Amino acid sequence: MTTEARTVEIKPQDYSYIFNPYREPIERVSPGDRVTIHTNDAFESRIQSKDDVASKALATAKFLNPQTGPLYVEGAEPGDTLAVRIESIEPTRDFAVSTLVPYFGGLTSTAVTRTLQDPLPEKTWVWKLDGDRLTNDDLGVELDWQPFMGTLAVAPDLEAISALAPGPFGGNMDVPDVCPGNTVYLPVWNEGALFYTGDCHARQGQGELCGVALEITAKVTVVFDVIKGKAIEWPRIESDDRIMVVGSAKPMEDAARIANTELILWLEGEYGFDRLDAYQLLTQAGGLYVGNMVDTTYSLVASIEKKYLSRSS
Amino acid sequence: MTTEARTVEIKPQDYSYIFNPYREPIERVSPGDRVTIHTNDAFESRIQSKDDVASKALATAKFLNPQTGPLYVEGAEPGDTLAVRIESIEPTRDFAVSTLVPYFGGLTSTAVTRTLQDPLPEKTWVWKLDGDRLTNDDLGVELDWQPFMGTLAVAPDLEAISALAPGPFGGNMDVPDVCPGNTVYLPVWNEGALFYTGDCHARQGQGELCGVALEITAKVTVVFDVIKGKAIEWPRIESDDRIMVVGSAKPMEDAARIANTELILWLEGEYGFDRLDAYQLLTQAGGLYVGNMVDTTYSLVASIEKKYLSRSS
Amino acid sequence: MTTEARTVEIKPQDYSYIFNPYREPIERVSPGDRVTIHTNDAFESRIQSKDDVASKALATAKFLNPQTGPLYVEGAEPGDTLAVRIESIEPTRDFAVSTLVPYFGGLTSTAVTRTLQDPLPEKTWVWKLDGDRLTNDDLGVELDWQPFMGTLAVAPDLEAISALAPGPFGGNMDVPDVCPGNTVYLPVWNEGALFYTGDCHARQGQGELCGVALEITAKVTVVFDVIKGKAIEWPRIESDDRIMVVGSAKPMEDAARIANTELILWLEGEYGFDRLDAYQLLTQAGGLYVGNMVDTTYSLVASIEKKYLSRSS
Amino acid sequence: MTTEARTVEIKPQDYSYIFNPYREPIERVSPGDRVTIHTNDAFESRIQSKDDVASKALATAKFLNPQTGPLYVEGAEPGDTLAVRIESIEPTRDFAVSTLVPYFGGLTSTAVTRTLQDPLPEKTWVWKLDGDRLTNDDLGVELDWQPFMGTLAVAPDLEAISALAPGPFGGNMDVPDVCPGNTVYLPVWNEGALFYTGDCHARQGQGELCGVALEITAKVTVVFDVIKGKAIEWPRIESDDRIMVVGSAKPMEDAARIANTELILWLEGEYGFDRLDAYQLLTQAGGLYVGNMVDTTYSLVASIEKKYLSRSS
Repeated sequence: MTTEARTVEIKPQDYSYIFNPYREPIERVSPGDRVTIHTNDAFESRIQSKDDVASKALATAKFLNPQTGPLYVEGAEPGDTLAVRIESIEPTRDFAVSTLVPYFGGLTSTAVTRTLQDPLPEKTWVWKLDGDRLTNDDLGVELDWQPFMGTLAVAPDLEAISALAPGPFGGNMDVPDVCPGNTVYLPVWNEGALFYTGDCHARQGQGELCGVALEITAKVTVVFDVIKGKAIEWPRIESDDRIMVVGSAKPMEDAARIANTELILWLEGEYGFDRLDAYQLLTQAGGLYVGNMVDTTYSLVASIEKKYLSRSS
Repeated sequence: MTTEARTVEIKPQDYSYIFNPYREPIERVSPGDRVTIHTNDAFESRIQSKDDVASKALATAKFLNPQTGPLYVEGAEPGDTLAVRIESIEPTRDFAVSTLVPYFGGLTSTAVTRTLQDPLPEKTWVWKLDGDRLTNDDLGVELDWQPFMGTLAVAPDLEAISALAPGPFGGNMDVPDVCPGNTVYLPVWNEGALFYTGDCHARQGQGELCGVALEITAKVTVVFDVIKGKAIEWPRIESDDRIMVVGSAKPMEDAARIANTELILWLEGEYGFDRLDAYQLLTQAGGLYVGNMVDTTYSLVASIEKKYLSRSS
Repeated sequence: MTTEARTVEIKPQDYSYIFNPYREPIERVSPGDRVTIHTNDAFESRIQSKDDVASKALATAKFLNPQTGPLYVEGAEPGDTLAVRIESIEPTRDFAVSTLVPYFGGLTSTAVTRTLQDPLPEKTWVWKLDGDRLTNDDLGVELDWQPFMGTLAVAPDLEAISALAPGPFGGNMDVPDVCPGNTVYLPVWNEGALFYTGDCHARQGQGELCGVALEITAKVTVVFDVIKGKAIEWPRIESDDRIMVVGSAKPMEDAARIANTELILWLEGEYGFDRLDAYQLLTQAGGLYVGNMVDTTYSLVASIEKKYLSRSS
Repeated sequence: MTTEARTVEIKPQDYSYIFNPYREPIERVSPGDRVTIHTNDAFESRIQSKDDVASKALATAKFLNPQTGPLYVEGAEPGDTLAVRIESIEPTRDFAVSTLVPYFGGLTSTAVTRTLQDPLPEKTWVWKLDGDRLTNDDLGVELDWQPFMGTLAVAPDLEAISALAPGPFGGNMDVPDVCPGNTVYLPVWNEGALFYTGDCHARQGQGELCGVALEITAKVTVVFDVIKGKAIEWPRIESDDRIMVVGSAKPMEDAARIANTELILWLEGEYGFDRLDAYQLLTQAGGLYVGNMVDTTYSLVASIEKKYLSRSS
């Protein structure tokens, strides 16, 4: 799209805690540029050791999940789709952290699923990152490095929404498929799309159960493309072998309904399936996993393998 | 467990439409016996061609999802766990069917998620089964044979519950991991456990989106074991490389909470993890997919790979 | 309906813990008979003082919520509606009890909304009942006597379901409008309808928040009627000034959808409203309160005042 | 609080479609001032006759639910509580409208509870307002004038949120108790509180079933007070005889949990009840109704009559 793609590196001066259509872009980039973005972790690096429990380490943090952005992508206009090809995620420190935050997570009562019970005990885990190995002494377990961006968004239409929220704009989806090698597609509501990212994870299970993945500081490299005149309603992801849609809602079944309906519309619109046939195909061959069950809304990922989309007729 | 394991084949005279602790066992089997059980499909074979739409073909069916059972497993007593090793599933016809049932499925309003809208159009798909290939002309897609039992249960404690329901007793979970090679563990509340199965599927996507998988008649071969004095609360599944728990509830997040909590208790009880460390491990490495989003409650499967359970310390 | 209405008093020999279509009727009664039924409380009178905390007092109780029944109502056949006019509820002791049951209630995690948190502390409240005054020393508050039956059911179709469950069959709805002066309508699936009741409450707030109302032993007097050939799908209630439908489901919005849809169908079927006009009327004038937010499913009550049903045209 | 209370009348030049902490105040008022605010209806008066169906009349409306505001209330600072006493609501036209909006409402699939079904038919109702009587010819029903403000908010902390959303900031709660004679308490996150209101209703049933109440243009008169140094978490309402809390969340049970927990904390903090005793009191005497089951989150109202709060001890 551009004749001379640049290499751009972005080190933010400060962060945004909302996906904000009104914030001044920190950089203007063009489709095709290789853009490397430095990101802080979800706690803005306040947790560094297992002694840093959340209730103390985060006591002075008015807001969490700092985002780098927005980036203004040249040529993106309302009604377009922004394609974000994720090239790489490199850690910028040699450890990842996770912690239990009082009244936050999948297996505790929360600020909205409220009960009168006491919170869970607090505990912090620091995982050493050595090459592609993650180890923690308390657990005595070794995991492999499978990095992704927990948060990746465009600015919403009119609203300025907390960076803790997932939604049609992407946001804090905490979906492991937002990873190197994959392309994420987002709706565009503002001139320049206004892209934000942050909250990189060294890895995470499906559901992000305790609410805090293996949080890292990182630099991520992406290449943008703008698909003119094509409007989508929810984030789409494409990998080598699958196409996916992320739906975010509560209760969780609504997220599943959104993700699958949008995937059916994708199969209908771009792969030539009759709508009910697409419904049938997903029934027999679709994937459906939980990205997060801990954020302001839950994110579910509906998918279908590309090999099932080559039709014989 | 028995000195002389038998081979038993069970062709039912009639079916049960409830998981019933009061129904007379149709067979008594022993742990170690190879038990082959013939099963009808969820529609009791009323749908055979694409012209058999549900509203007509099922008009005379007072109840659906016929089960073969109960089988009385010698030695099983309340407070034990029944282990069901699934050896094989063989089709007993050369096609599978799926259909849209009015006001039933994941992307329609239903009898409980009620709206004033009209139902979706009706459509039936017949898939030809040839070796391990499934083909349907309308879709022009080829899928592979990945059979499992949609329904597998023990009789509940005191209650007699519809064969359409999943629950702590197993039941109509519609979870693809209830498949050959895997072992399913169920709580025992009645003498002889009182095992039921049926509703075999040639394959199914995660979520069983339209509510009807690729329904087949089949014969399944299982071997039972009884784990004396060990009580579990929800169905567990073990494959070569993973351990899993199935939670069934509404809203869907409750199914996720159940499945993950039970899996944590499993890691704590049998793998030596501290409870919060197990919570941490699932957060970073657990799996969480939707089995069904269409039945009386939703079934979610939480899992962890066995390779992460060998602790270095 | 009968030429000579009898007066019948029923003191049960034992109780049923399920709504069971297979249990032998304990009495046969006719429409028009004045039937007085003795009921135990939900804990089968195991809690009598504030020292009787649930974890101890209920330790030997395998099942809770004992029901008196079934009563066989002459002339009731599948496809009919059973009308239950509630004449009176009289206490048979001079106190009511409430208690916190671990992991049960509206503001605690539960067996299905599971978390890893500790349960709430235990506490039992005994309320003195003196005429129509209820007093408790710990609270220092006086409440008035507003009795109703927490549980009132017919046997389901085929299934035998826990007496803790509400549903289309009525059951453990915990709806304060199941009270003297009102008539409850239930679907009939079995010959004789097979009526059960129990779980009387001296009073209860909307939602039955902690899960345990002011539990009493009582004798209730009802008069049955059978409406031949009229089938309903969910419990209906009629008071002097309102008509109501009780929907029971999870998540709570599904209970609200059921109750309102059924009420619209009632307005359409019996009051001559166009379906969308009935939707409009409930939008502007309907009532919608929470009966219980603690049982196996939640019960919501949709209502409309009769004064709005007299149409000018 | 002020020595000379003023009378202020506010006719907005334009509207805000978000609860926006960044928008310039349209007026500065002081506690004690009688402030009369003109409001447009939720459709910005685009629907005036029964021929104005939503899909056409609203086709040019990019955003809905226009708000008048923000008003800067002198003396209000973050950490305070804003008290809004509602003095009166007067209609500024002689009719109210309601309509069915495609894929919006309580008994239809929606943008989040998505299905593949067609939308409901469209229909618009115009209700004539004559004194305190509302009549509609299609229904042939007469309702009485019971006006309230569907939307009443302070600007959130950091975020700018759609005027269609209810939340901790108040917002589009659609709760009939936001009516003349009552006082609404809201948290303050911004200097001046930044108050918004709009969306007046001639009346509405509990649940706002079809999603659109009897929408009117109006002028509302309120008097503000600022409670210094008192922070609350969710909107509170006080009437002559009850205190109430509004919780907004999905699924609906979470809204009920929030409202009741906050009400318990209120009883504990200001009425001297032990926390568990307050839980007990609400169990036996609390109210719990559905304000809306149609907005971005559901709003439930927990309440207790003041007569139960005068303790004998």
